[in-house]
Amino acid sequence: MKSIVIHAARDLRIEDQPVEQPGPGQVQIRLAVGGICGSDLHYYNHGGFGAVRLREPMVLGHEVSGHVTALGAGVSGLQVGQLVAISPSRPCHDCKYCREAMFNQCLNMRFYGSAMPFPHIQGAFREVLVADASQCAIAEGLTPGEAAMAEPLAVCLHATRRAGPLLGKSVLVTGCGPIGVLCILAARRAGADFIVATDLGDFTLGMARKAGADLTINMATHADLLAGYGRDKGTFDVLFECSGAASALIGAIPVMRPGGTILQLGLGGDMTLPVQAITAKELSLRGSFRFHEEFHTGISLMRKGLIDVKPFITQTFALDQAVAAFETASDRSRAMKAQIAFS
Amino acid sequence: MKSIVIHAARDLRIEDQPVEQPGPGQVQIRLAVGGICGSDLHYYNHGGFGAVRLREPMVLGHEVSGHVTALGAGVSGLQVGQLVAISPSRPCHDCKYCREAMFNQCLNMRFYGSAMPFPHIQGAFREVLVADASQCAIAEGLTPGEAAMAEPLAVCLHATRRAGPLLGKSVLVTGCGPIGVLCILAARRAGADFIVATDLGDFTLGMARKAGADLTINMATHADLLAGYGRDKGTFDVLFECSGAASALIGAIPVMRPGGTILQLGLGGDMTLPVQAITAKELSLRGSFRFHEEFHTGISLMRKGLIDVKPFITQTFALDQAVAAFETASDRSRAMKAQIAFS
Amino acid sequence: MKSIVIHAARDLRIEDQPVEQPGPGQVQIRLAVGGICGSDLHYYNHGGFGAVRLREPMVLGHEVSGHVTALGAGVSGLQVGQLVAISPSRPCHDCKYCREAMFNQCLNMRFYGSAMPFPHIQGAFREVLVADASQCAIAEGLTPGEAAMAEPLAVCLHATRRAGPLLGKSVLVTGCGPIGVLCILAARRAGADFIVATDLGDFTLGMARKAGADLTINMATHADLLAGYGRDKGTFDVLFECSGAASALIGAIPVMRPGGTILQLGLGGDMTLPVQAITAKELSLRGSFRFHEEFHTGISLMRKGLIDVKPFITQTFALDQAVAAFETASDRSRAMKAQIAFS
Amino acid sequence: MKSIVIHAARDLRIEDQPVEQPGPGQVQIRLAVGGICGSDLHYYNHGGFGAVRLREPMVLGHEVSGHVTALGAGVSGLQVGQLVAISPSRPCHDCKYCREAMFNQCLNMRFYGSAMPFPHIQGAFREVLVADASQCAIAEGLTPGEAAMAEPLAVCLHATRRAGPLLGKSVLVTGCGPIGVLCILAARRAGADFIVATDLGDFTLGMARKAGADLTINMATHADLLAGYGRDKGTFDVLFECSGAASALIGAIPVMRPGGTILQLGLGGDMTLPVQAITAKELSLRGSFRFHEEFHTGISLMRKGLIDVKPFITQTFALDQAVAAFETASDRSRAMKAQIAFS
Repeated sequence: MKSIVIHAARDLRIEDQPVEQPGPGQVQIRLAVGGICGSDLHYYNHGGFGAVRLREPMVLGHEVSGHVTALGAGVSGLQVGQLVAISPSRPCHDCKYCREAMFNQCLNMRFYGSAMPFPHIQGAFREVLVADASQCAIAEGLTPGEAAMAEPLAVCLHATRRAGPLLGKSVLVTGCGPIGVLCILAARRAGADFIVATDLGDFTLGMARKAGADLTINMATHADLLAGYGRDKGTFDVLFECSGAASALIGAIPVMRPGGTILQLGLGGDMTLPVQAITAKELSLRGSFRFHEEFHTGISLMRKGLIDVKPFITQTFALDQAVAAFETASDRSRAMKAQIAFS
Repeated sequence: MKSIVIHAARDLRIEDQPVEQPGPGQVQIRLAVGGICGSDLHYYNHGGFGAVRLREPMVLGHEVSGHVTALGAGVSGLQVGQLVAISPSRPCHDCKYCREAMFNQCLNMRFYGSAMPFPHIQGAFREVLVADASQCAIAEGLTPGEAAMAEPLAVCLHATRRAGPLLGKSVLVTGCGPIGVLCILAARRAGADFIVATDLGDFTLGMARKAGADLTINMATHADLLAGYGRDKGTFDVLFECSGAASALIGAIPVMRPGGTILQLGLGGDMTLPVQAITAKELSLRGSFRFHEEFHTGISLMRKGLIDVKPFITQTFALDQAVAAFETASDRSRAMKAQIAFS
Repeated sequence: MKSIVIHAARDLRIEDQPVEQPGPGQVQIRLAVGGICGSDLHYYNHGGFGAVRLREPMVLGHEVSGHVTALGAGVSGLQVGQLVAISPSRPCHDCKYCREAMFNQCLNMRFYGSAMPFPHIQGAFREVLVADASQCAIAEGLTPGEAAMAEPLAVCLHATRRAGPLLGKSVLVTGCGPIGVLCILAARRAGADFIVATDLGDFTLGMARKAGADLTINMATHADLLAGYGRDKGTFDVLFECSGAASALIGAIPVMRPGGTILQLGLGGDMTLPVQAITAKELSLRGSFRFHEEFHTGISLMRKGLIDVKPFITQTFALDQAVAAFETASDRSRAMKAQIAFS
Repeated sequence: MKSIVIHAARDLRIEDQPVEQPGPGQVQIRLAVGGICGSDLHYYNHGGFGAVRLREPMVLGHEVSGHVTALGAGVSGLQVGQLVAISPSRPCHDCKYCREAMFNQCLNMRFYGSAMPFPHIQGAFREVLVADASQCAIAEGLTPGEAAMAEPLAVCLHATRRAGPLLGKSVLVTGCGPIGVLCILAARRAGADFIVATDLGDFTLGMARKAGADLTINMATHADLLAGYGRDKGTFDVLFECSGAASALIGAIPVMRPGGTILQLGLGGDMTLPVQAITAKELSLRGSFRFHEEFHTGISLMRKGLIDVKPFITQTFALDQAVAAFETASDRSRAMKAQIAFS
């Protein structure tokens, strides 16, 4: 079977690997669709990010769906032929954080397609995948492409939960890539009333409007529109910072309402922040990292039609066009979520 | 101008009263629509409820919308001709609870159409109403009937906020009158995933399905269906108890998930509760009473199309048919929200 | 070795049982002290409580300390000779609640000395006890009697945490048995400012004052003193209801501040409650049941001198005086916490 | 009467001003004691801080106590001769934040001794002060020096409340000036179990130990001791950052437990922060600014002996030694809280 392997920046290869059989509690899955995530792009374009660097070849990918082809011993609740979304999160269930149900902080996490730790954790972009049954969420009624969106959607649902009740709140979203757009969907689903989204490009801002933003602001040309929300100490109850850019976070602080909450999802480097203003306005800057049970929540909300991610899957490539897929996904002026069809 | 005055149980009269002029900070409104609430029905059918009893004639009504006809001195932000929803909540802004922003606990509350305290607080079912500008929410884009739903919707939004984050949660609603149905809408808007509603009649349960309940259970005939959700200590994260019936609350306790939250909106009398089960499951039983800023939140969500109350306005009567309106509203087998058109 | 076995109401026997050896991950403990809890007294005086009834002989006891006498394979962090407090809570770590870290709701809980489920879970009043190492908290620096207070203290710390921040808050405690008195200590430790305690007897109220209550009220003679706190809708932010008596809970509702929180620890039967008042004041009635990590928290706070339980250990009996111990413990006019010395 | 007026950096003068009479709702107070705060020192040493600069002479001081000498019309609850602590916080009670009870975010705040806004808000270091009765907390039973500590104590109680429940938690305090030391007292009062404090000087660390820190670390010489708490992703549930130094905050991030909370009290300039680590550990960085009702809470806790600030009042100067007082207060190697006796 074929898999998509990154060897170094710009060195992406399709390679043959042996097909695995499912052990007890596991299932074998014929992959249907894999979405390309920002971290995949970092490996592809730069060989890593921050201190996380490729040191050996690694199968990429962690946003995947597929059809069950075989069940290992003792698996119940899944059937051969079913479409499933596969969670890339594999906590150890035994460390002190797992025992406190803080699974996303597991000391021994084995998250698909991560160059940290070493040896790297191999990813899920392979034609045949063996996974634990507990990683699988039944996705029947969804397209394989939607099912493969469960992972980034879970990231955004996790952040939305960490934001506290959003019913009737005013929300700002900075950075309208896939995470920003899915945060708009999640915030609206959670009852946000007024949603403003900012970015630097018209394509992504158009997507933000399609996701339901009440107003979008191109900060390259209309930053003053945002500044207007700073009257009387600010407007927004909640910020979802999805860009990882210091300028986005810094620019948002004057328009946050005193006591407001900032969810930091974007992974950037160090940022020089106006801590005095954060202090005086009593803002809360909260990190939000990955997810856990929100993976199943997202599948359920999509299956009921309560969240619709289809408009944000902008391109689908065949497996042998993987390099073209990564090139397209890297271009934020025309790709929101690019996916690869494995079968 | 005419007003709707209750003199005693079953003694409802349409009476003439003088038109008032708006003072500073006030507006004069030509009433458009008034919705009949459960408490109005208690006065009409029984002369009160619990210790709250009619002792003198009282204008009924507190769910109202209308068009601005005159502005008092110093009023800005409103214009003659605008449709507004008028909040019946008039806290003193000076007592210790108001100073802590707990306005719904105001020691000197003057809520429209309340027989407690004495002299009674006169209500809003009158052709011309003078109100404080701060009570008015601009409702343009809504029908007058929708605007008059802002008050019961606010009650339900308040309870929904008190429930904590609902995104992806399982919710039970007991009692599918207007409050129950609006709680379904509010819970879904706040991101609830699985919603079950119970009642004793098919008409209200049909309305609950229209509001988006995933499942409705007629407890008169299918109580066993609810009981099935009690496996493994229960299913529901949140209960909105909207019936005021002890049997509904008691029947829900076995199907609540440990640590779950019960919002009590229904106003009943004393209830004999299984406190030991509440303790052992660590449930939280929280009262939810009226609202404050949620009045404006509801108007905003309706104006954006994020909550649609129109299907639940089942009858509209002319002012001179007020008695028929009250009779119909009292019949839960055919009326969800009955309203009176004042102009 | 001897153990204390209840056969039926008023039929308490000291019986010989074989000494067990510790398996892997376990420790053998020579019991030092066991405290008599209210549930032990229910078995002794009434053969059970509510639906929980003795159906076969059962070793009583779950408030115990002792000295480590042997270590099973793989145990680290404990040494022979150390004084430990032993938690009676033994969740399965595998059910859905355990996996969410809701250990006190474990579907397969094996809590020492519980007649529910059947076969009963045998208790810890035995000269030699084999326990999991993870149940043991090192108690060096404490007396064995203090260490045996870790369990009821944990119950109260758990409730205190569920009460939310108490710093500067006004607290009412109803029922001044051991749980009530330890709630006073815990609430003060958590920063409560004004603490009032009520009961029906002078002995327990004296203990409440010793625990730091600012004011105690004998409800048998001075109920009007409590009623005075009902002015302007009430005074207390938090109630710890430790009596299990409906009259205590009902009497507290008028003196609770709107929005206040009631922690229900007392286990009574059904109670007829003024749900309308709970609703209108937006009170929260929260069950609090057992504990988990608070067991270690209590040991740590006692070892640092931040909580002092010694004044509340009012009697210590030799093992062969167990019946006298249970008789004395049943007399709330002279016993707060009666303990049995096993060695 | 004399007052202490800052004209420019290092230009502090004692000047005569006319005595004022109390208007309706006001009281006249003969000042007893005034404590010198860090912001007073910034004006004295540097003429301001950040963008806040002296532009005209300003009476300093906002930590004050005194004896009531006259009551204005309509004042009840205070008597001539009583010792009171006077809160420097004077919100307008009319802006949108005041109406939401977010008084510390008042748009028209008139906080004593603030160069922002302009004209500056004059301070309270004057022999005779006229204040609103609502600013006064009866401090009988306290020394005037303790009463003057109510203001910085309130700052720390406010931050402690914002930290959420502390019972049994592990707390780190960075920066052991008066705010750091009072945070130690407040955190312990709120039930913190393990408290570590860091600073760069032995004098302040000694004070931290006196306040109850379990361990103090001199970061100039023993930074490795702190780093040891970074094992397994960290130890501390809560950080009170009281230094305003970026190095303190940055150094604390690796020793914070995932999901932990950082209260930022120290007012520094911009800080370059490891936002990626904050995100991945899901830390919450919360500003904490001033206080409101915690002023009265602190007085109450001190009067009951639940918090003892006396050991931290290290020097008291006569009014005519004000310059010496400011010089001493500026020396963190020998002054914790320096106060001035006005009478």
